[in-house]
Amino acid sequence: MYKTAKKIVRKESEQMYALMEKLYPICRSITGNGVRKSLQILKEIVPLEVHEVPTGTVVFDWTVPKEWNINDAWLKGPKGNRIVDFRNSNLHVLNYSTPIDQEITFGELKEHIFTLPEQPQLIPYRTSYYDENWGFCMRHSKFKKLEAGTYHAYIDSSLEEGSLTYGELYIEGEEKEEVLISCHICHPSLCNDNLSGISAAIHLAQALLAKKNRYSYRFLFIPGTIGSITWLARNEQKLENIRHGLVLSCVGDAGNITYKKSRRGDAKIDHIVQKVLEDKNETYELRDFSPYGYDERQYCSPGINLPVGCFMRTPFGEFPEYHTSADNLDLADMDALEDTLSTLKQVVHVIENNQTYRNLNPKGEPNLGKRGLYKRVGGASDTEVDQMAILWTLNLCDGKHSLLDIAVRAEMPFDKIKRAAAVLYETGLLKEMN
Amino acid sequence: MYKTAKKIVRKESEQMYALMEKLYPICRSITGNGVRKSLQILKEIVPLEVHEVPTGTVVFDWTVPKEWNINDAWLKGPKGNRIVDFRNSNLHVLNYSTPIDQEITFGELKEHIFTLPEQPQLIPYRTSYYDENWGFCMRHSKFKKLEAGTYHAYIDSSLEEGSLTYGELYIEGEEKEEVLISCHICHPSLCNDNLSGISAAIHLAQALLAKKNRYSYRFLFIPGTIGSITWLARNEQKLENIRHGLVLSCVGDAGNITYKKSRRGDAKIDHIVQKVLEDKNETYELRDFSPYGYDERQYCSPGINLPVGCFMRTPFGEFPEYHTSADNLDLADMDALEDTLSTLKQVVHVIENNQTYRNLNPKGEPNLGKRGLYKRVGGASDTEVDQMAILWTLNLCDGKHSLLDIAVRAEMPFDKIKRAAAVLYETGLLKEMN
Amino acid sequence: MYKTAKKIVRKESEQMYALMEKLYPICRSITGNGVRKSLQILKEIVPLEVHEVPTGTVVFDWTVPKEWNINDAWLKGPKGNRIVDFRNSNLHVLNYSTPIDQEITFGELKEHIFTLPEQPQLIPYRTSYYDENWGFCMRHSKFKKLEAGTYHAYIDSSLEEGSLTYGELYIEGEEKEEVLISCHICHPSLCNDNLSGISAAIHLAQALLAKKNRYSYRFLFIPGTIGSITWLARNEQKLENIRHGLVLSCVGDAGNITYKKSRRGDAKIDHIVQKVLEDKNETYELRDFSPYGYDERQYCSPGINLPVGCFMRTPFGEFPEYHTSADNLDLADMDALEDTLSTLKQVVHVIENNQTYRNLNPKGEPNLGKRGLYKRVGGASDTEVDQMAILWTLNLCDGKHSLLDIAVRAEMPFDKIKRAAAVLYETGLLKEMN
Repeated sequence: MYKTAKKIVRKESEQMYALMEKLYPICRSITGNGVRKSLQILKEIVPLEVHEVPTGTVVFDWTVPKEWNINDAWLKGPKGNRIVDFRNSNLHVLNYSTPIDQEITFGELKEHIFTLPEQPQLIPYRTSYYDENWGFCMRHSKFKKLEAGTYHAYIDSSLEEGSLTYGELYIEGEEKEEVLISCHICHPSLCNDNLSGISAAIHLAQALLAKKNRYSYRFLFIPGTIGSITWLARNEQKLENIRHGLVLSCVGDAGNITYKKSRRGDAKIDHIVQKVLEDKNETYELRDFSPYGYDERQYCSPGINLPVGCFMRTPFGEFPEYHTSADNLDLADMDALEDTLSTLKQVVHVIENNQTYRNLNPKGEPNLGKRGLYKRVGGASDTEVDQMAILWTLNLCDGKHSLLDIAVRAEMPFDKIKRAAAVLYETGLLKEMN
Repeated sequence: MYKTAKKIVRKESEQMYALMEKLYPICRSITGNGVRKSLQILKEIVPLEVHEVPTGTVVFDWTVPKEWNINDAWLKGPKGNRIVDFRNSNLHVLNYSTPIDQEITFGELKEHIFTLPEQPQLIPYRTSYYDENWGFCMRHSKFKKLEAGTYHAYIDSSLEEGSLTYGELYIEGEEKEEVLISCHICHPSLCNDNLSGISAAIHLAQALLAKKNRYSYRFLFIPGTIGSITWLARNEQKLENIRHGLVLSCVGDAGNITYKKSRRGDAKIDHIVQKVLEDKNETYELRDFSPYGYDERQYCSPGINLPVGCFMRTPFGEFPEYHTSADNLDLADMDALEDTLSTLKQVVHVIENNQTYRNLNPKGEPNLGKRGLYKRVGGASDTEVDQMAILWTLNLCDGKHSLLDIAVRAEMPFDKIKRAAAVLYETGLLKEMN
Repeated sequence: MYKTAKKIVRKESEQMYALMEKLYPICRSITGNGVRKSLQILKEIVPLEVHEVPTGTVVFDWTVPKEWNINDAWLKGPKGNRIVDFRNSNLHVLNYSTPIDQEITFGELKEHIFTLPEQPQLIPYRTSYYDENWGFCMRHSKFKKLEAGTYHAYIDSSLEEGSLTYGELYIEGEEKEEVLISCHICHPSLCNDNLSGISAAIHLAQALLAKKNRYSYRFLFIPGTIGSITWLARNEQKLENIRHGLVLSCVGDAGNITYKKSRRGDAKIDHIVQKVLEDKNETYELRDFSPYGYDERQYCSPGINLPVGCFMRTPFGEFPEYHTSADNLDLADMDALEDTLSTLKQVVHVIENNQTYRNLNPKGEPNLGKRGLYKRVGGASDTEVDQMAILWTLNLCDGKHSLLDIAVRAEMPFDKIKRAAAVLYETGLLKEMN
């Protein structure tokens, strides 16, 4: 097993932030060296495998596109001054821009400039993956001051045969049934969307690597849409093993947690996340599935229909910094990062521990007194279990209710029921169902 | 096909009103020449068939009654003046009155007078189909002024062997599965109840005759209760073809639309009407089935149990003019008539177009860009389709969700989903299910 | 049949109270002569059978305990004065106290004194059935005044081989399917908990003995927990006959009726009690099952899972007098006792009369007029039935809906539907389903 435990010295949120900080400057896209460099950084933390899928590979209805790389870019004004410079922000270049090195009039130039008139101080994030084009993104405040004249547009990029790169980490558990955790890695210098998701996934993976697990876990670090479609197309035979799944996106801002249910709407993962959020006793939001968003769109397409939900804090498009230069490291909230990771760990904890038991003394209540489980319970700290949790667990352990089901019906935290079940199991009153 | 198109020059609501105006003076009942004359007028517009079922015919638990006809009626007071006159209002005669020509005391007369003490200016509408009786209905204000003395009651009616008459229009569609539209035609000079229903049915039929339809449509113009029972008893073998049905009654007043669900409560027609009403974005009311009302009582009797709801504006008994001389042509609201017809046409539109498709690229999203369905959509007017509607349609076209189901889940108008499906179908992404 | 009818001269609530009054002074426990004496009193009213189950008998996971009896008990202070005296209140002795006759210091004594600091004027009710111990319960106000010194604790009790005693009354009906009514009889001088339940059960039994019943009825008068477990263990073969069941507890106080549903949550008894409470048009409370409370815990254990709910007024623990000397005869409310009994009789009435019928004229409505059921209904008092109740009953008597189902859907009182069904049955329009 990968050694990670001894590295954990700083608070986890600080480590999460540090990783985001390291990834932040890199210019990522759906293909290219930005992704490779990012995955290399992740690989220093967890033993992920890097896959390269050649340009032109047919994946379901799609084809892996040409690989895009960029070295430099700038726009010079009539007086020769640099108006935008890729080195200041990789958002300045329309992502997937074709190369150009040309003098053009202001009139021609305007067709290739993207701004946010309503947020004039921010640089927008724009892409043109499947329509070959070039362009610059800039502050509207600056754009308004541009004058007529001859400009020089320079983009030193390449769009060539190559490959699509993604990372995959498989953590084998006792069972081959697996949990899928997926995050998109195609955004350049944008922090909440989705360095936060990447960092949360990596640190959750670290925690799983440090212990024995019942389920196997598969983490995907993929470019949005084309990445999940590529993975699905190459791994159809593995899908039947996926029992639960989460897409992680926008999990670093100070907003409350939002969970978007799977297409099925009543998948186990939907109930698990809802219960974990309820048990936390903090405000959260549940949303029904809709076919817009991140890679849950692909995992929940009708022919795939996996039990995969989307775990977020403030959803994409609902925070003003979304897809702008303001989605930077300042947006990351340390408490939120901590809360995201601990909530995800609790989701995993419920997944791992959601056993179904059968009460071996189902006729009448068992005599708790003679087993030392009556009244004395609640006293000693190591056997501290709630009397009502014991009664609920005995009453509903009929082989049909999982611990989660019991916790939901009893309106008690999952862990309270789990502790009760553990004590009853030790006492020989419960039997695990297969 | 029946030629109707060239006649459509006036606004449809005006035509609907004109038909009501033409039918208004006729004294109808559950049998007799009033019904025949009315059906003859309808037959000038649509090619309906007129059925005659002889008195004495056993129909389920009932027997077709004697035929009733009336020529004239009046009541003369002690001074020889006409107190009520059938020629002024056919409501003045108790519907199905036996003939009489007799002088009687005021004391005897009072047993045969019906008034509305709480609406003293209105003539009530009363019937005595199955208890042989005679009587007059009059304004309470006038009744109060009557003095003792000898009166002369004169009713020139006949109650004899004859037949029950009803109209039936069958519009054959591509499929033999059919939609039933039923309205009662047994009320004399009452406008909202139910010349409005008759007129709406006729104009809906006209619209269906003018085009090719997927479903077959059967319109029934029948006397209430005994008419639907007669039709059901004579057509039991056709019932299995009825997929959807509506009873139309009281659809001409200015009130909001009220829809009373079928006995099943979750019949397709119930969902269709509800969705059409929701999409209209106007106030409406949904009611659960109850075994009181119009002929839905018969269509939804336990041994018949057809998916038939009742489409109304203000329900019977809930407008003050109900079953009185105030339910006259003044009660008709032109906007309401227009709205009723356009809503019914939209119901038919959903019935006709509620296809179920299968996404032929169900694994991951299909590449919309390469098919020109991404971003460019929303531009050109003839392919103007909503991007979210496309995504919902692709996501839920798994062969199990109809377009209606998709529209309901997506919380989008049916037509938005229909347009998306049409575009996807043309692009070859959807296949129609059988 | 047991003759009870002629005894009914006083109001039933007065009789219920008189029985509580007679039982009140007796010191009951889960075994012993107090129970025997109480059952003897009940046997004078209804022909119940008294069962004795020897100490040591294994019943499921439990063993019948030693029998406890007590003659006298007191605590004398340093000056020889009696501080507490069993003869003043049997609550003064910890129920199931082992015998003692010993001088002890105040320090030692304190370990054996139970008080209610927050209700200083009340004597608490405490038990120690399965942990051998001795003790006194007293007012906290008095306890606070005790001084250091030598005390004399005297409890003349015995804890010996003997038996557990319970009462059982089986009232045979036409069918062997049975209704279980259970109440606990183990509490000493406590009135609402549960002399009220005992008295209600006895008077309900009296009413059932006075008439012929469709169902058989089984009344259990048992010590809590160990009593129901004992009965269940000895009667497993009878459980399959139990169709409905109620535990009666705390039914004499002035609070509203509270019904706690069976574990199944949708058992017929749950629907029946809910409907009876609704029909009463008084405030009531419905609660979901929880595995805490009275003997419903045993009847609803997962391996038994009977359709048994718990019928209460103010639930245990929710009235301040609960398990204290204030739960005395003053707490009994005559109107509440009357209401409890009449409600239980109505529950039995619905159980007995909840037939399922089939409409023999299911196609269209039957002709009510020719059967004298139209209009004339509502007139004469002996056939006074509601027209809408007739229509609902005809419409839903499809062999699938019981009269209860119809009443619920029609939102009408059960008895209104029952009367309609009776009239329709007499007319030959309905057939009883087997």
